[in-house]
Amino acid sequence: MARTAAALVIGNEILSGKIQEANLAYLGQELFKLGITFARAIICPDDMDVIGADLNALRAAHDFVFTSGGVGPTHDDITLAAVARAFDVKLVRAPEIETLIRGYHGERVTEDHLRMADVPEGARLIASADVPWPTVAIENVFIFPGVPEIFRLKFPPLRQELGDGSRFFSRAVYTFCDEGEIAHLLSREQDAAPELFIGSYPRFRGEDYRLKVTVDGADEQAVSATLERIVAALPADKIVRVD
Amino acid sequence: MARTAAALVIGNEILSGKIQEANLAYLGQELFKLGITFARAIICPDDMDVIGADLNALRAAHDFVFTSGGVGPTHDDITLAAVARAFDVKLVRAPEIETLIRGYHGERVTEDHLRMADVPEGARLIASADVPWPTVAIENVFIFPGVPEIFRLKFPPLRQELGDGSRFFSRAVYTFCDEGEIAHLLSREQDAAPELFIGSYPRFRGEDYRLKVTVDGADEQAVSATLERIVAALPADKIVRVD
Repeated sequence: MARTAAALVIGNEILSGKIQEANLAYLGQELFKLGITFARAIICPDDMDVIGADLNALRAAHDFVFTSGGVGPTHDDITLAAVARAFDVKLVRAPEIETLIRGYHGERVTEDHLRMADVPEGARLIASADVPWPTVAIENVFIFPGVPEIFRLKFPPLRQELGDGSRFFSRAVYTFCDEGEIAHLLSREQDAAPELFIGSYPRFRGEDYRLKVTVDGADEQAVSATLERIVAALPADKIVRVD
Repeated sequence: MARTAAALVIGNEILSGKIQEANLAYLGQELFKLGITFARAIICPDDMDVIGADLNALRAAHDFVFTSGGVGPTHDDITLAAVARAFDVKLVRAPEIETLIRGYHGERVTEDHLRMADVPEGARLIASADVPWPTVAIENVFIFPGVPEIFRLKFPPLRQELGDGSRFFSRAVYTFCDEGEIAHLLSREQDAAPELFIGSYPRFRGEDYRLKVTVDGADEQAVSATLERIVAALPADKIVRVD
């Protein structure tokens, strides 16, 4: 069985639609490349009890949990405190992070800035040569900022820790078929290869194709064999391209 | 207390990062205008048991639940069957929808197309003059397609059913302040008005502002009073604009 991951996105601003969530698709793509099944994502408000309960449920059920958001210096940034409470540990100031914060803000530093150096007791700091700010992790929980640019900077240094050499493979065929006319074909192939994931994604805008069919799985040969069988069974004049 | 809503987004393609989730922000904005607190969203895979368990938890805890995705004719479209199982009812073919499907596909209609007319027994069909396809609802659960264009067509006809005359209000000030320097101010105002939501959103791209501070709530006067107090306390030369 592939390892599984979950994400907890924390922030009223996502749920009120003020800010478009923009980290889960990236995270999903990265986990796919690492052979980790992204099994669940929850978006919750800035509420200490809700974050704690969700985090404890997710970390018990999955190999890895990623949080996104709520790590700044203001009153609504409660992720680190909520994680500490969920693990039943104190927040302790991390001197390495305090030094970075003082270096960045100089004499304008405030106690609210420094609060960003408070991490759950027992957390580890994952630093890298490329990214000055370490990622805070405790057991199987990795704490990420919500800002997409920073999320994307901080993930790559984790690949080595998360990777175990496995990966998933994906192939696709783009067609002008209608879903209803090929549903029986896809269903038959899915039944024949239950370890693969066959997906069918219609498109309502654009004229270059109408339906994308994908085959995903951990076994590259099995993925390709199933995709090729689907391609062979489709009407040739409706195939746009095979990836 | 405001009414609450939750969403269940169903689809492996969202979790694998093949497709960017694009309905939750829209739904959040619409619920905000209706005075409904969007309290929770879950993204889950195309798995009958997971969908059923999530749906039953969400519909017990919230006034309204919206599902997104999994309503097409292929093997991975299992939302309606999962909803029926969660409610412990059968799927029954809805003649109104069958007629629409037959009308759309004509003689090329397949049994897989017609499967899209199977709805949980006891479901109601919410039709409107503007949208030919009715929305399927059962008790407090509303079933939406994942395709963003169709999601946005099908939501507006529900406003009347969901509305009770309440709404939320939001105001904002855009500044060049740093979060750390105004954190104490926001914290004080949040403590003074716990029924409001004060949010602080830094921006890392763009030069027209650096930090957006928002005040949201059900009481328009209270929202404005708190925003005006925050504006009055900010350094005037760092204020970009007040909305």
